[in-house]
Amino acid sequence: MMTPTVDIATRVYNHKWKIDPIVRSLIDTDFYKLLMCQSVFRYRPDVDVTFRLINRSKDIRLADLIDEGELREQLDHVRSLSLARGESTWLRGNTFYGKRQMFRPDFMEFLENLRLPAYHLEKREGQYELTFEGRWPEVMLWEIPALAIIMELRSRAVLKDLGRFELQVLYARAMTRLWEKIEALRGLGPDLRIADFGTRRRHSFLWQDWCVQAMIEGLGERFTGTSNCLIAMRRDIEAIGTNAHELPMVYAALAETDEELRQAPYRVLADWHEEHDGNLRVILPDTYGTPGFLRNAPDWLAGWTGIRIDSGDPVALTEYAIDWWKSRGEDPAQKLVIFSDGLDVDEIAALFRRFHGRIKVSFGWGTLLTNDFRGLVPGDGLAPFSLVCKAAAANGRPTVKLSDNPEKSTGPADLIRHYRQVFGTTEGQRFDLVV
Amino acid sequence: MMTPTVDIATRVYNHKWKIDPIVRSLIDTDFYKLLMCQSVFRYRPDVDVTFRLINRSKDIRLADLIDEGELREQLDHVRSLSLARGESTWLRGNTFYGKRQMFRPDFMEFLENLRLPAYHLEKREGQYELTFEGRWPEVMLWEIPALAIIMELRSRAVLKDLGRFELQVLYARAMTRLWEKIEALRGLGPDLRIADFGTRRRHSFLWQDWCVQAMIEGLGERFTGTSNCLIAMRRDIEAIGTNAHELPMVYAALAETDEELRQAPYRVLADWHEEHDGNLRVILPDTYGTPGFLRNAPDWLAGWTGIRIDSGDPVALTEYAIDWWKSRGEDPAQKLVIFSDGLDVDEIAALFRRFHGRIKVSFGWGTLLTNDFRGLVPGDGLAPFSLVCKAAAANGRPTVKLSDNPEKSTGPADLIRHYRQVFGTTEGQRFDLVV
Repeated sequence: MMTPTVDIATRVYNHKWKIDPIVRSLIDTDFYKLLMCQSVFRYRPDVDVTFRLINRSKDIRLADLIDEGELREQLDHVRSLSLARGESTWLRGNTFYGKRQMFRPDFMEFLENLRLPAYHLEKREGQYELTFEGRWPEVMLWEIPALAIIMELRSRAVLKDLGRFELQVLYARAMTRLWEKIEALRGLGPDLRIADFGTRRRHSFLWQDWCVQAMIEGLGERFTGTSNCLIAMRRDIEAIGTNAHELPMVYAALAETDEELRQAPYRVLADWHEEHDGNLRVILPDTYGTPGFLRNAPDWLAGWTGIRIDSGDPVALTEYAIDWWKSRGEDPAQKLVIFSDGLDVDEIAALFRRFHGRIKVSFGWGTLLTNDFRGLVPGDGLAPFSLVCKAAAANGRPTVKLSDNPEKSTGPADLIRHYRQVFGTTEGQRFDLVV
Repeated sequence: MMTPTVDIATRVYNHKWKIDPIVRSLIDTDFYKLLMCQSVFRYRPDVDVTFRLINRSKDIRLADLIDEGELREQLDHVRSLSLARGESTWLRGNTFYGKRQMFRPDFMEFLENLRLPAYHLEKREGQYELTFEGRWPEVMLWEIPALAIIMELRSRAVLKDLGRFELQVLYARAMTRLWEKIEALRGLGPDLRIADFGTRRRHSFLWQDWCVQAMIEGLGERFTGTSNCLIAMRRDIEAIGTNAHELPMVYAALAETDEELRQAPYRVLADWHEEHDGNLRVILPDTYGTPGFLRNAPDWLAGWTGIRIDSGDPVALTEYAIDWWKSRGEDPAQKLVIFSDGLDVDEIAALFRRFHGRIKVSFGWGTLLTNDFRGLVPGDGLAPFSLVCKAAAANGRPTVKLSDNPEKSTGPADLIRHYRQVFGTTEGQRFDLVV
């Protein structure tokens, strides 16, 4: 019987690895970071920002689980990365959201010369304080690799004591679970539209890649793509994503007056409007409270393609948006709503059944797509947790996020109060954070 | 990121395969076939026998599922096999059941020169009629490869329409299921003793090999070994097995008088007694009914190490054997009982709990170890079924098997009646055959 031939060169090559890198490409990141980066590079290239890692799950003591040396090695490795030639070619030549040359030559040149800036790492009370400071278009690209590194180092820490078969069975169970989710999603019919948004809190790169392949095979046209550029390139599928809270948070932090502050979220989208059309014109309205944002929005925003619901009660907020579109003379049936907050199959099914036919429904499925190992190891040590990496300050001023769920608020307490006043934000309902 | 280097030579070599062989070694067979073969080679080398495939699950229409050309290719491939040098070295030099040079030089020479004899294949009523005729020590070695080929071709026929991810998830589910069984067995405590007897009706060679590795890792010392010689050699574990029904069946068929017939099963074991001791002295008493066999057995058989329960009600038969040992002045606590009939975890647990401490309990776990894909594909097309390959005739005379379960009886009806009369066998309880 044939035994697989050992590839000696690969073995020897592997022996030479100092580390097993978690992030091996600058485009192993979310597509919307590159879109936003281009926008920042154009409109706010000289803003200084601080990004900060925040572990909202305090009971997960990351500094006890993850070796500091290993963490530094992984972060240092990311700093050694630069855009590969094939990656640059793909970004320059590929069609994104139906558009050629999405990325302008001056931005591509910036990206081709980019190395990620330094990081600052300290341990405090069982947690890592990890911050990144510098020019916004450079620092912002740390968010996704930093999160992916911490998540995967934590997975590795938990897995390192498992035997070979325990590992095989662990992944067998996780595969079975995901496939059952995909079969349940298939049961929702041919009109479902769903994308992978799971890069930042994935179990590991290889696992995310497997999940994406499973979605391709299991959902066909219903799977619209992945937020991960590297996987989109390798699997030849759509790269998906629009924009995130960091844009209004930084714009707001830079405001000199209350009126400028009030206008900041719209100013962000006015800049975006200049750059993008079609399915990239998606409002993320919750940074300082969705109802107030929509109530005070200029009419041209009602003409945008859709809205992304990323916190709060998705049913109530969608009904609110539908009413808002109607009040502005828009047809909700032509509008896209992207749900992306802590989704799993049951929530997806309930939202799809409720809104399918009334609006165009789409889902950005994140952590519970790419990191659902709940209950699969003793002590549930692989359960996902709530880790974020946020813009904490801009030009020395703290940023604030209110969100439609007060559990997701960030910023100094006095500033949170001030922002609430300016934006007329009620506190809203609290939702537990799973991820 | 590193992609695995393609091993071009292996790829090209694979392209040259005309077939993907199911059986790639003469020792990809059960250890007890070799033990019995040596015995036959010594005591009955010139007997002509006919082995015949019998599919007891008539609803599985094998000739509709399996392509005849593929079946012939696989069978032809087995005829091209001869004992490899390393295999010969292992058989000559390894310790089996604590004994060196288990296989005598004349037998090894026979084995080294052996090619399996011709086969006869016909289709009839949706089934394959597959028979092997010739000298007993050669023909008998067809049994296991013939069964393994049919089982795996049937698996392949069912699997060929599955997509890549459906396949991955199928195996993920099967792995998860087996690991849960192993965890349940571990719950029985450190005294459990269990071996793999699943070669003949395995899902595939690679799957059996995986199952054995899972047993090694999950059960440690509780896993006593495998019946499969190739896997025992490769994984450096014990090769397990004693003797089977074909010995008394052929000896009985050759009997000239009723008295010779009555003595035939004991004659078999007398020859075995000459050759083997210790844990190889295990009685298989059910060929013509266990109670009659034990009742009429000579006292030296009560001195044997143990008994294998392969049909009928295992609890009643074990109680019967315990009483029998006591009646012959033997201590049942020193006796080994090997259960090997259609076991799964629940039966193993129940038998272990009932008899542990009263006797030495051991299990030969077969089909539901190496081929439990029940419920994993639509239509349950991978569920195991009851396929055997039996000695049907010896020197032109039909063989008969009664067994402790009339569903397992084989032979012409008039001869079955005659054997019942001679051995005083009552019909016994019927048990459905799963495998």
